[in-house]
Amino acid sequence: MRQLREPGVGYPVWIGSGSEPAGALNTLATGRDVMVLSDRNVAPHHLDNLCQGLDSAVRIEKLVLPAGEDSKSLTGFSRVLDTLIDAAFHRDALLVALGGGVIGDLGGYAAACYQRGIDWVAVPTTLLAQVDAAIGGKTAINHAQGKNLIGAFHDPLAVWADPSRLDSLATREYRSGIAEVIKYGLGLDGDFFAWLEENAEALDGRRSDVLTTAIETSARTKLKVVAADRTERGSRALLNLGHTLGHALETALGHGTWLHGEAVAVGLLVAAELSARRGTLERGSVSRLRALLQAFNLPVKFPADVDHDTLAHALELDKKILSGRLRFIGLEALGKAAVWSDVEQGEFFAAVNAAQEAGAG
Amino acid sequence: MRQLREPGVGYPVWIGSGSEPAGALNTLATGRDVMVLSDRNVAPHHLDNLCQGLDSAVRIEKLVLPAGEDSKSLTGFSRVLDTLIDAAFHRDALLVALGGGVIGDLGGYAAACYQRGIDWVAVPTTLLAQVDAAIGGKTAINHAQGKNLIGAFHDPLAVWADPSRLDSLATREYRSGIAEVIKYGLGLDGDFFAWLEENAEALDGRRSDVLTTAIETSARTKLKVVAADRTERGSRALLNLGHTLGHALETALGHGTWLHGEAVAVGLLVAAELSARRGTLERGSVSRLRALLQAFNLPVKFPADVDHDTLAHALELDKKILSGRLRFIGLEALGKAAVWSDVEQGEFFAAVNAAQEAGAG
Repeated sequence: MRQLREPGVGYPVWIGSGSEPAGALNTLATGRDVMVLSDRNVAPHHLDNLCQGLDSAVRIEKLVLPAGEDSKSLTGFSRVLDTLIDAAFHRDALLVALGGGVIGDLGGYAAACYQRGIDWVAVPTTLLAQVDAAIGGKTAINHAQGKNLIGAFHDPLAVWADPSRLDSLATREYRSGIAEVIKYGLGLDGDFFAWLEENAEALDGRRSDVLTTAIETSARTKLKVVAADRTERGSRALLNLGHTLGHALETALGHGTWLHGEAVAVGLLVAAELSARRGTLERGSVSRLRALLQAFNLPVKFPADVDHDTLAHALELDKKILSGRLRFIGLEALGKAAVWSDVEQGEFFAAVNAAQEAGAG
Repeated sequence: MRQLREPGVGYPVWIGSGSEPAGALNTLATGRDVMVLSDRNVAPHHLDNLCQGLDSAVRIEKLVLPAGEDSKSLTGFSRVLDTLIDAAFHRDALLVALGGGVIGDLGGYAAACYQRGIDWVAVPTTLLAQVDAAIGGKTAINHAQGKNLIGAFHDPLAVWADPSRLDSLATREYRSGIAEVIKYGLGLDGDFFAWLEENAEALDGRRSDVLTTAIETSARTKLKVVAADRTERGSRALLNLGHTLGHALETALGHGTWLHGEAVAVGLLVAAELSARRGTLERGSVSRLRALLQAFNLPVKFPADVDHDTLAHALELDKKILSGRLRFIGLEALGKAAVWSDVEQGEFFAAVNAAQEAGAG
């Protein structure tokens, strides 16, 4: 396995399969009560295997929740806590979150709050979670009025990203994760963007070496940004490239209609479009982005049935708006995102309109 | 006002009344949306007055919950979050928790979790909260199976302890707070214990200068312990003197039957009794403790109707037990608490029995 460590981030990211990372996890579990949280999609593929490797644990308690965003709620939070409490687990227990972003965010948040904080390990099983959600210590659940409104910063002891766990992932979900991979290239690493263009076909085919490199480069990029800004007060906002619009789009369409990465794909395109209109980004880069997204069959067109009012309403509660100012992540160049505080609503909607039309044909 | 600051603790404790602390709070609220959380007992006495002083805030949103422990629940937590979300408050909002321990713990926990953490100020209105609950950054809500099982460490920007707010406190509740004051003397400061003996009558009469000194000495003692152990992994456990039994007693009797401080009073007595039986504490100190508790009409007898089985069950989930070992806070001397890991159940129940009999007559 490869182990990524970043100064300023207190935990490693293990990338790899087999006995080495499994043994490392078992070491963390030594002499402790362990709760493994998963969901019904993931558990049949990975739960038994993971638990078999935890033979150093004192007790193992499992909770398998329904798959999907609904579990990432106060109700799901209660169920995790009830399991810990019913098992009389103490403050030195370990929680292992085995699943995608929902399970990681929920498990991490429950670990943050049970007895004011117990240790946890993230074992992400989706590409999205391996390159993004599981790294950075952000945990959260949703509120009826918005995503991730209730949460905590609570670092895991380790993140174990095993590329072989992605074998069981549906194509659409895998490609949704690719949108986040593309984000790192577009916003933070132009060379990586070019590498993605070259390796798009192999990556879409989940070729093991290419996939591992994509995960590793993405995870390393995220770790660097996180290290510079642990609690998202400044530069970490760059990671929200494409996400202001992406989140709003998910809300406007109703959660679950589009996958997160699909909404982010359109968000990236709107960010690029707005930047091209400002003249900071070459027009050609917008075309390259569109082509790259299309190579993974990701959406490149803003949905025609979402009107500006609905979108504006959905944007209102998004955390990227601080006290009414729209803080937009734009592109100073390919591979160079920046926080812009001077974006007007009109300029923003003009870019949305362009993305609504440009994708056609 | 007097301002206590302790190196290693990132926030001040203001002790005093009038325009100086009110102005300091108003300064913290400048240019921000402010939510004031209170309860139905406290709000009629203090809410309007507090809000009038917040003229630098952009908006003020109030939430007044039913008084009592039931509000310190997932339901109460939801109501605070709903208020913040309905008002579309952003991450730079400020929450002010105006009330006793319930409001402080709940408000602090909601502040810890809303958008992964917003600023808050504790304005404790009970003696218990002014000398204990509001200081130390521990926030929590209860679970049906135990107190404070869900929570976070989230420091406030400041704690404002205004002794004049205690005027509206019922006698029984005031005296319950005195039990925590006595705890600081008994466990951590023998001179303060002697001072309390000398000033018991004036303190019970809430004489302003004596009360202010008692609050200040208690708060300073707590700050010092907290500074040495922010997340309660070590020496901070000393503050749990009397609390292992106290919490269990509250659970066994049903929450609300005895006030927290009343249960702690008996817990202190059992700790002293156990220590005297070990020979670390003079027998005379046990008598002095009993006399001091009685000066405030606090209980000095373990209730006869709580049997050992009920108590043992109630002890099981208490956080002071780490993986099955009973960690007991004993007394090496008057004013010198210590963590003991070698207390057997039999020894513990013998001390409980003694406290069940000794108080009689």
